[in-house]
Amino acid sequence: MSDDERWMTNALALAARGRGAVEPNPMVGAVVLDAAGQLAGEGWHRKFGEAHAEVNAFAAVGDKARGGTLLVTLEPCCHHGKTPPCTEAVLRSGVRRVVVAMADPFPKVAGGGLKILRDAGIEVTVGVREAEAKKLNAPYLKLLATGRPWVHLKWAMTLDGKIATRTGDSKWISGEESRAIVHELRGRVDAILVGTGTVTADDPALTARPSGPRTATRVVVTASGELPERCQLRSTARDVPVIVFTPAGNESKLARWADDGAEVIAVSTPSPPALRGRGQGEGEERPAAADRFIGEEGIPPHPNPLPLKAGEEGIKIARLSIGDILLELGRRRMTNVLVEGGAGLIGSFLDANAADEVHAFIAPVVVGGDTALSPAGGHGFARIADAARLIDAHVRTVGQDVYVNGRLH
Amino acid sequence: MSDDERWMTNALALAARGRGAVEPNPMVGAVVLDAAGQLAGEGWHRKFGEAHAEVNAFAAVGDKARGGTLLVTLEPCCHHGKTPPCTEAVLRSGVRRVVVAMADPFPKVAGGGLKILRDAGIEVTVGVREAEAKKLNAPYLKLLATGRPWVHLKWAMTLDGKIATRTGDSKWISGEESRAIVHELRGRVDAILVGTGTVTADDPALTARPSGPRTATRVVVTASGELPERCQLRSTARDVPVIVFTPAGNESKLARWADDGAEVIAVSTPSPPALRGRGQGEGEERPAAADRFIGEEGIPPHPNPLPLKAGEEGIKIARLSIGDILLELGRRRMTNVLVEGGAGLIGSFLDANAADEVHAFIAPVVVGGDTALSPAGGHGFARIADAARLIDAHVRTVGQDVYVNGRLH
Repeated sequence: MSDDERWMTNALALAARGRGAVEPNPMVGAVVLDAAGQLAGEGWHRKFGEAHAEVNAFAAVGDKARGGTLLVTLEPCCHHGKTPPCTEAVLRSGVRRVVVAMADPFPKVAGGGLKILRDAGIEVTVGVREAEAKKLNAPYLKLLATGRPWVHLKWAMTLDGKIATRTGDSKWISGEESRAIVHELRGRVDAILVGTGTVTADDPALTARPSGPRTATRVVVTASGELPERCQLRSTARDVPVIVFTPAGNESKLARWADDGAEVIAVSTPSPPALRGRGQGEGEERPAAADRFIGEEGIPPHPNPLPLKAGEEGIKIARLSIGDILLELGRRRMTNVLVEGGAGLIGSFLDANAADEVHAFIAPVVVGGDTALSPAGGHGFARIADAARLIDAHVRTVGQDVYVNGRLH
Repeated sequence: MSDDERWMTNALALAARGRGAVEPNPMVGAVVLDAAGQLAGEGWHRKFGEAHAEVNAFAAVGDKARGGTLLVTLEPCCHHGKTPPCTEAVLRSGVRRVVVAMADPFPKVAGGGLKILRDAGIEVTVGVREAEAKKLNAPYLKLLATGRPWVHLKWAMTLDGKIATRTGDSKWISGEESRAIVHELRGRVDAILVGTGTVTADDPALTARPSGPRTATRVVVTASGELPERCQLRSTARDVPVIVFTPAGNESKLARWADDGAEVIAVSTPSPPALRGRGQGEGEERPAAADRFIGEEGIPPHPNPLPLKAGEEGIKIARLSIGDILLELGRRRMTNVLVEGGAGLIGSFLDANAADEVHAFIAPVVVGGDTALSPAGGHGFARIADAARLIDAHVRTVGQDVYVNGRLH
């Protein structure tokens, strides 16, 4: 491993510290070396709206950067957003070299930062640890490229693949340590999605306890529009945002949810042509939703989200299109969303080929039962060889449980 | 850890080398120390019918055992079986001390070996690493105590808890490394059990490839008596034993299986009182089965198997009692049996509270599907809190898969 790669590995680890706090911005880390190649400073983008990684890295370096090297996990920005362009800070610092893991595809940057540095006579190297950098910011890159957030699926199941017993009992399949990881995950995503059945059966709060760097919007996907009259989500909708997606025509059933502070969004019954139209143009039709946008920096409402693919068009929870829901969440610049169940909703995401990452907790308990539900329903793949495989699966024991986390191929 | 415990740990590891080769005898390991406490010899029971651990340990020690110590994982035997009593070898060796992990509950020993040694003036310590010794020989101890073999359940499932896709495809869920472990397991058990559905859908050979220390009898449990006309099990029944359990009255459907060399055993329809009667007395009624006994040593046909418990009486695959089947296999002195599926058979074993150990292989693939089967069917537990928990679960990654092995509480 070269020195550049070693330092960039450090910078990537620094970047990751911003996870959950910086989105919809990317996570970025930076290391400054002096002219002799010794560590002079380091920093990372700590929070959305606050200073960028390069600025933090230069902060306490003073003159030591002169003639030195900046290693940064993403191309420095060159536009005025919530903070001044980072390229200015780089030029002021007097570094001789800049090493960048990857260019930033963000439309206002997109190579412009690199050009400014090169034009100023700085030696610029791009592509050091690029694969790792792309992996780190995969959710940011997906949202930018497709207009859709990164979709995490989460389930806790028994060793015989059940998420509840035949009677519906599911408390507690996984142990305390596993549940702590789920709460960490909840505390860093933009939305948590559940289906009607989960709201009815479990009455979950879907909050992070303890709270994390951000507060997820709770999202209920209900084809029937029939949700319990009393439940935690509705009674706390004024404290923590709740969105209910339901097919057009069902809004009236959910008037009381709206009264109690939930945002009820009608999603039209998706026939493929109508859906394709919605996916491209609907953003402008919903000004009410737009004022929830986090700010003017970072990812703007996507100007031209990709049209739904064949697979997505056909897949719906009863009459709700997964692709449609994701476009709406992406329009709100949500970077990471977590689908917590039940089996029907998770199956729909798999059927739509709309899942990016899996978090599975497996408890050492066996319940049996022909009618006990397993984590993923839906239509399902016909052949094992064609099914969704995890890449880079990480396996670790968490208390008594096994936690498997990985991205889907 | 005391010296005795350390040496006994070694002896237990030696004992385990006999796994699969010594049953229905127990696994036994032995270490001989000289008068100065230095290692003088070690041995283990290598194969059923061959020399016992103590004899092997003394074999090359010569005079060095005099005044020394024997550490052995099980009480030395004091009866003439296939080999002379080990107590004689111990007395001849001249050791001053004997340290034993556990007494042998085998009726012809049961403390008699310890008494002979103590009466001869040898200092005898019992109970060093006793828990580990009992765990090592849990199948032997279970068969001795209950007349039933130790039941292993095995399944390979996807990360979303499916053993096949909605179309029944299951090739291959688990990877090569996992399948190699299954073949190892097959090569050391006395029987492999499958249900009608597995024979029909997968046409398995149920042989160990490569072969192990013993050749398992293939057992088909069929409530309907309706098995495929052509299948590997039937066509190879003269090469490797096949038993078919079916309810009384179904034998005629299986006449061709019998013609081809399979042993067809009618199990009466279990109404609770009839079953209780069978459980206690049926051994004597089946001389044809008795000539498959391995030999006169080790575990004799159990004189008085425990009557079926309430749970077992009621549990049946359609009309086949799990308890009844296990008593028959135990009567043949089978120590370990492996239930490979399908979901119905595994569920029935769980419902009957008749499973002792689980081997679950979890592959990093997600298939989804409302109708895709999960590993354990049957009735199932109503509450998570009451379900079967693994104790001492061992988790390891095997190739791309996760392998969870543990005993059920």
